[in-house]
Amino acid sequence: MAGVSLNKARTIVRKALAKGQELELKPLSVVVLDAGGHVQAFEREDGASPGRFDIARGKAYGAVMLGMSGSAQMARAEQQAYFMNAVNGVFGGAVIPVPGGVLLRDKKGDVIGAVGVTGDTSDNDAIAAMAGIEAAGLMGEA
Amino acid sequence: MAGVSLNKARTIVRKALAKGQELELKPLSVVVLDAGGHVQAFEREDGASPGRFDIARGKAYGAVMLGMSGSAQMARAEQQAYFMNAVNGVFGGAVIPVPGGVLLRDKKGDVIGAVGVTGDTSDNDAIAAMAGIEAAGLMGEA
Amino acid sequence: MAGVSLNKARTIVRKALAKGQELELKPLSVVVLDAGGHVQAFEREDGASPGRFDIARGKAYGAVMLGMSGSAQMARAEQQAYFMNAVNGVFGGAVIPVPGGVLLRDKKGDVIGAVGVTGDTSDNDAIAAMAGIEAAGLMGEA
Amino acid sequence: MAGVSLNKARTIVRKALAKGQELELKPLSVVVLDAGGHVQAFEREDGASPGRFDIARGKAYGAVMLGMSGSAQMARAEQQAYFMNAVNGVFGGAVIPVPGGVLLRDKKGDVIGAVGVTGDTSDNDAIAAMAGIEAAGLMGEA
Repeated sequence: MAGVSLNKARTIVRKALAKGQELELKPLSVVVLDAGGHVQAFEREDGASPGRFDIARGKAYGAVMLGMSGSAQMARAEQQAYFMNAVNGVFGGAVIPVPGGVLLRDKKGDVIGAVGVTGDTSDNDAIAAMAGIEAAGLMGEA
Repeated sequence: MAGVSLNKARTIVRKALAKGQELELKPLSVVVLDAGGHVQAFEREDGASPGRFDIARGKAYGAVMLGMSGSAQMARAEQQAYFMNAVNGVFGGAVIPVPGGVLLRDKKGDVIGAVGVTGDTSDNDAIAAMAGIEAAGLMGEA
Repeated sequence: MAGVSLNKARTIVRKALAKGQELELKPLSVVVLDAGGHVQAFEREDGASPGRFDIARGKAYGAVMLGMSGSAQMARAEQQAYFMNAVNGVFGGAVIPVPGGVLLRDKKGDVIGAVGVTGDTSDNDAIAAMAGIEAAGLMGEA
Repeated sequence: MAGVSLNKARTIVRKALAKGQELELKPLSVVVLDAGGHVQAFEREDGASPGRFDIARGKAYGAVMLGMSGSAQMARAEQQAYFMNAVNGVFGGAVIPVPGGVLLRDKKGDVIGAVGVTGDTSDNDAIAAMAGIEAAGLMGEA
């Protein structure tokens, strides 16, 4: 399965958490999924609520499965909520269509996975995700 | 598992029910969850409808898993319904995002569980929950 | 819905827990369901594992839904495991077919609910359940 | 929420993976759950199959929810397969009852979470888990 190496996934997670601390965000949780939507790495900061894994994964999972960033999914949900609800039906309810879900692309532009961040506002979550992705030398689409 | 003792949970349940009787509310149901969202104590008053366990738990479960009170969840649902729908998807449909779901915090402010009350209006449910929590000497966030 | 009063349900729960303490069993969890299989009261002792609500309910739920005690369900599972697996399919996987699930009957012999106890061996769980039921002046079928 | 700190969780994950490399095991995946069964940290080595997150979590989840190590769960499944099947029903099919699921206990003996390792034989998975737990200065029950 295409994906980033565990080494790069670690860098993404650590640097996203570091960005959250630098910006004094609430405790964050960060997941990296491979190109099949399967979990590769995850960390939840001390003080984050227990349900954060599911939310982080939901943001990244929708990105991979639909090939759409969290922002693009949110735009669609704003215009056509019943469509995103129905999409969630076929994906077992596992999709959270808001910013903080960021597509990972390789140099050719192919999707190689996604990052999901949750804990602060959706926009701040996306900023932290992008910081992690850049630190790993990858391209993100938020 | 962080949580209140069974002794304190009993006090919460009994005093919340007593508050409902004092205010002549409809028959109430009261649940106490631990910091992982797992049931510790529950009682349903005579005359309450049979589905009240699931509703009480749903109010408290969302509070624990998201670290947000029922009021805060309702505000988010009012602003962004598709987001709370999606959140509920990742939690198996188990979240009821309205008042009556009250976070329990310890003296440091850490979440140690939640109380869920249902049976009357959501606002009256929250009043009963807070009465139980105060009687147990704990801090609630409704 | 037929069922015991909350008052009697409380007695069952308390006396079952007291029996467990008297016999020095592991921490117990006790649920009382009404004649429709819906939760009326539950308590989990300090030190019990977090999943005990689901197990206690599963023991009592099978008893109500099938009109069979936990012992009778276990006998059937021992003889015909695939049948009890299939039964669980139609009940959403919610049935735990072992002792500790005890039918509650009124004086005419009609089922008015069930009690589920978990935490120690299945046989000890059933002993604690029967002690609670007898203390409430009801008839149990373990 | 009772649990280990993220710092300790990282140590567990890294040292369990290092043990696997030292013993030349197949690529491992390691999860740390808190005392409520919620994910705190996870890493999957390069070359592991994509479903490893669910298996690692399943091993650790059963340990937390039942308060039983993977070895104890396997012994029960060997003796009474229909019981462990039924238990899995009430936990949404999320339990993998084999070694590699290791309970984490604090100094008083209270369960504070669990570690799940998968990728090699169940017994080797448990060895790697214990190496991580010891490196973090915690007590494990495999």
